Amino acid sequence: MRSHYCGELSSSHIDQEVEICGWVHRRRDHGGVIFIDLRDREGLVQVVYDPDRSEIFSIAEHVRNEFVLRVKGRVRPRPEGTVNPDLPTGEIEILGLELEVLNRAETPPFQLDEHENTSEEVRLRYRYVDLRRPEMLEKIRIRAQVTRSLRRFLDERGFLDIETPMLTKATPEGARDYLVPSRTHPGQFFALPQSPQLFKQLLMMSGMDRYYQVVRCFRDEDLRADRQPEFTQLDIETSFLSEDQIMDLNEEMIRQLFKEVLGTDLPNPFPRMTYDEAMERYGSDRPDLRVPLELIDLRDLMQDVEFKVFSAPAKDPHGRVAALHVPGGCKLSRKEIDAYTKFVGIYGARGLAYIKVNEAAKGRDGLQSPILKFLTDAAVEGIMQRTGAQDGDLIFFGADKTSVVNEALGALRVKVGEDLGLMEEGWRPLWVVDFPMFEWDDNHDRWTPLHHPFTSPKLDQLELLESDPGGCKSRAYDMVLNGVELGGGSIRIHLQEVQQKIFKLLEISDEEAEEKFGFLLTALKYGCPPHGGLAFGLDRLVMLLTGSSSIREVMAFPKTQTAACMMTSAPSEVGMDQLRELSIRVRKPQSEDSTA
Amino acid sequence: MRSHYCGELSSSHIDQEVEICGWVHRRRDHGGVIFIDLRDREGLVQVVYDPDRSEIFSIAEHVRNEFVLRVKGRVRPRPEGTVNPDLPTGEIEILGLELEVLNRAETPPFQLDEHENTSEEVRLRYRYVDLRRPEMLEKIRIRAQVTRSLRRFLDERGFLDIETPMLTKATPEGARDYLVPSRTHPGQFFALPQSPQLFKQLLMMSGMDRYYQVVRCFRDEDLRADRQPEFTQLDIETSFLSEDQIMDLNEEMIRQLFKEVLGTDLPNPFPRMTYDEAMERYGSDRPDLRVPLELIDLRDLMQDVEFKVFSAPAKDPHGRVAALHVPGGCKLSRKEIDAYTKFVGIYGARGLAYIKVNEAAKGRDGLQSPILKFLTDAAVEGIMQRTGAQDGDLIFFGADKTSVVNEALGALRVKVGEDLGLMEEGWRPLWVVDFPMFEWDDNHDRWTPLHHPFTSPKLDQLELLESDPGGCKSRAYDMVLNGVELGGGSIRIHLQEVQQKIFKLLEISDEEAEEKFGFLLTALKYGCPPHGGLAFGLDRLVMLLTGSSSIREVMAFPKTQTAACMMTSAPSEVGMDQLRELSIRVRKPQSEDSTA
Repeated sequence: MRSHYCGELSSSHIDQEVEICGWVHRRRDHGGVIFIDLRDREGLVQVVYDPDRSEIFSIAEHVRNEFVLRVKGRVRPRPEGTVNPDLPTGEIEILGLELEVLNRAETPPFQLDEHENTSEEVRLRYRYVDLRRPEMLEKIRIRAQVTRSLRRFLDERGFLDIETPMLTKATPEGARDYLVPSRTHPGQFFALPQSPQLFKQLLMMSGMDRYYQVVRCFRDEDLRADRQPEFTQLDIETSFLSEDQIMDLNEEMIRQLFKEVLGTDLPNPFPRMTYDEAMERYGSDRPDLRVPLELIDLRDLMQDVEFKVFSAPAKDPHGRVAALHVPGGCKLSRKEIDAYTKFVGIYGARGLAYIKVNEAAKGRDGLQSPILKFLTDAAVEGIMQRTGAQDGDLIFFGADKTSVVNEALGALRVKVGEDLGLMEEGWRPLWVVDFPMFEWDDNHDRWTPLHHPFTSPKLDQLELLESDPGGCKSRAYDMVLNGVELGGGSIRIHLQEVQQKIFKLLEISDEEAEEKFGFLLTALKYGCPPHGGLAFGLDRLVMLLTGSSSIREVMAFPKTQTAACMMTSAPSEVGMDQLRELSIRVRKPQSEDSTA
Repeated sequence: MRSHYCGELSSSHIDQEVEICGWVHRRRDHGGVIFIDLRDREGLVQVVYDPDRSEIFSIAEHVRNEFVLRVKGRVRPRPEGTVNPDLPTGEIEILGLELEVLNRAETPPFQLDEHENTSEEVRLRYRYVDLRRPEMLEKIRIRAQVTRSLRRFLDERGFLDIETPMLTKATPEGARDYLVPSRTHPGQFFALPQSPQLFKQLLMMSGMDRYYQVVRCFRDEDLRADRQPEFTQLDIETSFLSEDQIMDLNEEMIRQLFKEVLGTDLPNPFPRMTYDEAMERYGSDRPDLRVPLELIDLRDLMQDVEFKVFSAPAKDPHGRVAALHVPGGCKLSRKEIDAYTKFVGIYGARGLAYIKVNEAAKGRDGLQSPILKFLTDAAVEGIMQRTGAQDGDLIFFGADKTSVVNEALGALRVKVGEDLGLMEEGWRPLWVVDFPMFEWDDNHDRWTPLHHPFTSPKLDQLELLESDPGGCKSRAYDMVLNGVELGGGSIRIHLQEVQQKIFKLLEISDEEAEEKFGFLLTALKYGCPPHGGLAFGLDRLVMLLTGSSSIREVMAFPKTQTAACMMTSAPSEVGMDQLRELSIRVRKPQSEDSTA
């Protein structure tokens, strides 16, 4: 139907007859002539219809935005003074010789260039209109380029793309499963995978050696900020490699990706930081290294002050007292500081102490702070020395349970960094390593795995599993980029006795282990190789690469915060006969039914 | 951990020290020396342990099948007379210098080289053992090669790999949907896609122009012979292309695939055959052209015979009388013919008349048949002439409703062709085109679409939609290879008024159309380009390419005929609290509940 894409035409086509197809982006009548900007996937081109071809002209007159046209015409240079340097095709236009309306269009629910004034709800309902915007097309295109690049990298290194089931057994990731009732096994259910974790481990036991998959995963969670019920992972697993080899390979892949897609050189190698150091310096296990601010520990300085707000957590082994030194922070107004106090409250902090350094040389008199009076000279001096605060700077304080201080100051660090324009440009990847195996779950009074229960402990710390589970580190690693966790993985447990020990420590009973993971424990008995891998969140990766503000922007048909599709109206009610076939029925919220 | 794969070692490595990892395939003690065949993804290599290294030797002594080992050793030529020409590494062996047992293995549930004596159930339960067999690894590897080749072909031609949702609205393909209860919308359900049909059409309306996806699809059907509840499609859609262009592109892709994977040249171009011709000559819309037999129509010859079994269907416009001429068929015994009679009974045929041609020159006397007495000389002469039967041949007859004759003789044609060794070697692809738009559904007394309701009718036959729906042909096309439908597709309806007309003809009410496809009808209003596409069954394609007998052989983790996973025991029961959260409960089979 066409000889060229609209967007690929240029001066090199002048005097050629071309055929193009596309959508009417704009139509203007000007001086008795009709100008149509025709749009396709590759861009826009201007088509001109003169009134001297009256039959075609009258068709052109009735054309409206988003009509689908087929145009035959001759490429010519634009008249002097009408060249549009902002448009790749801006040097030329097409003199329309033929015109066929392939399809009409009603006035669209919003004009493409007015999408910013359109609610996201309307844009999602008419997603096929929103996706026509060149910015959206570009994101979809980059997403395809990303998966292509990643696949090629892995293909070239002997990784096999292997598909794992979607209708599977409830997975152990800990989030809520999406369930699928079985018709042929009444009363039983499949679960949609939260990840192919166990399948990829079984593939290693099958001798596949190197596996990858770009795979859909599902989590039925309450959708916070930027989650989707279904999302895509680049899932990778290898046998007989150490964690260093796996990390090297994966950072090489990401470096190549950034080079190909953005032309950017990421650092080689990525810095590696232990979990403990990341928490200590940034209050986060996915620190945004673009923010130059760091948390500074004050425990030793505060243990003996009389100010209980500081001394109590300083004395508590589960507490922390830390400072965040903000260069130039004196300019923050009382109101702004109040807003930050509210902000850290989200993370459980009960206040936000601070010191403004007006004139350091004056000692106490040069400082301004509501808490100054509670601190000894030695403490104040220690703070000034350790933070290195200069005139005009501000010091924030966090003092609470360690987790609260880390979360509050960690988040404040990024927020203040953004607000004060301290953020560096560019890409700051790193690996976070040496994670704890377990964290203590106060609610259930037991240990829970920080990653998942198949993560291997450090080989030289196996005895800590019994003596000090909290001190035992795992062979896990996370790749972090600009404060976003891009991917994470670990060396897995390949010895059945270690796996059983972990289940025991997690207070998973033999029966429960057998019921949930029996097939894994059995498989471990028949010759399981040492193995490990990684999974990347593809949506987040593409979001970063395209500079998008949400993963919804990089999915063709995303769902809303309530896990619904505005376009198709899914989920929806289904017929009674369908449910009957599946041996289920809907439980009406009002009806209390004790038999169920 | 290793310097080489086991299977890549050869004479070129002689005198090198290598490190390899893998599974013990076999262990033999011979003349005081231990031989271990070590296996990894790439193959086997023989490792030799001498007793003069006593410490390592004693480790080697305790090694059993499927143990996972790490071996360090020196490559050396095998002694004269012990070279194994059947093994790629058969010229060399490794003198073991170090040995580490990475993991032990219990005696596996079956020995790899005894899989043929093992039930499929056991092989599926211990799939990770079965997948270690080199034949299985090879199938998985070819599958990865196939998707890689297809992706590259499409990538190079500007197709964008775009992901569509898995949690979606009930799809209209007509098979049963897998449902997923929504937690956030109590009483409502998602459906897993039977295909991304509507999404890919919406992507064309979004201006994506060229789309593909290797995508999981789901059908909750009773699993006949070789179906799986979840299967994989290569899904393709384009805008502004004609059916010829789409077919050309896709057969080029398949040709390239066969060349790359098998080194085979498929015909260029593929022959094209109308649906009517395929049914007439082969009784099937996916004819296996390797079988040289054809159906021969006898309607005109049989209309006036007194034998009602033949004359009645010959006179019935919905009936058919046809012959299948089997060269050399005289050698079939009474018992074999009885078995074929039973075979066609599966397809509804109430008998299987035949004539054996013992000596054609003798006329009637040279023929042998229970039905000969019912046929006039003219009819017999006509049959002999039209079939061209020679001495020693046999002619089978089918006379019934057209659909019964076609199915019965179509299936018989292939079976007899196989049994008598008439099947040609090689690959015989073709396109079947010009399908009817609709077929009459006797059960519901209405028209149903032969493909799906979004298939475009031939443009010059739009008026037949009203005057003669049964005579209206569609713009659909199927790619068939050796009797297997590899893929099918069509040009879709891009005009809203045509789509509405089709819904009306299919007796889909306005309300139903609005509820099920409202979003599609709406989208058609806002500028839908002409578009069409295709979907290939990836599992079947890989099955053909690997010469496998079932699609289960080319899926890593397939399900059984009752849609269950033997390995993980999915589906399974779930907790009451989980169901409660989803606002559903299990309907117990025994309890009659009128409120539900």
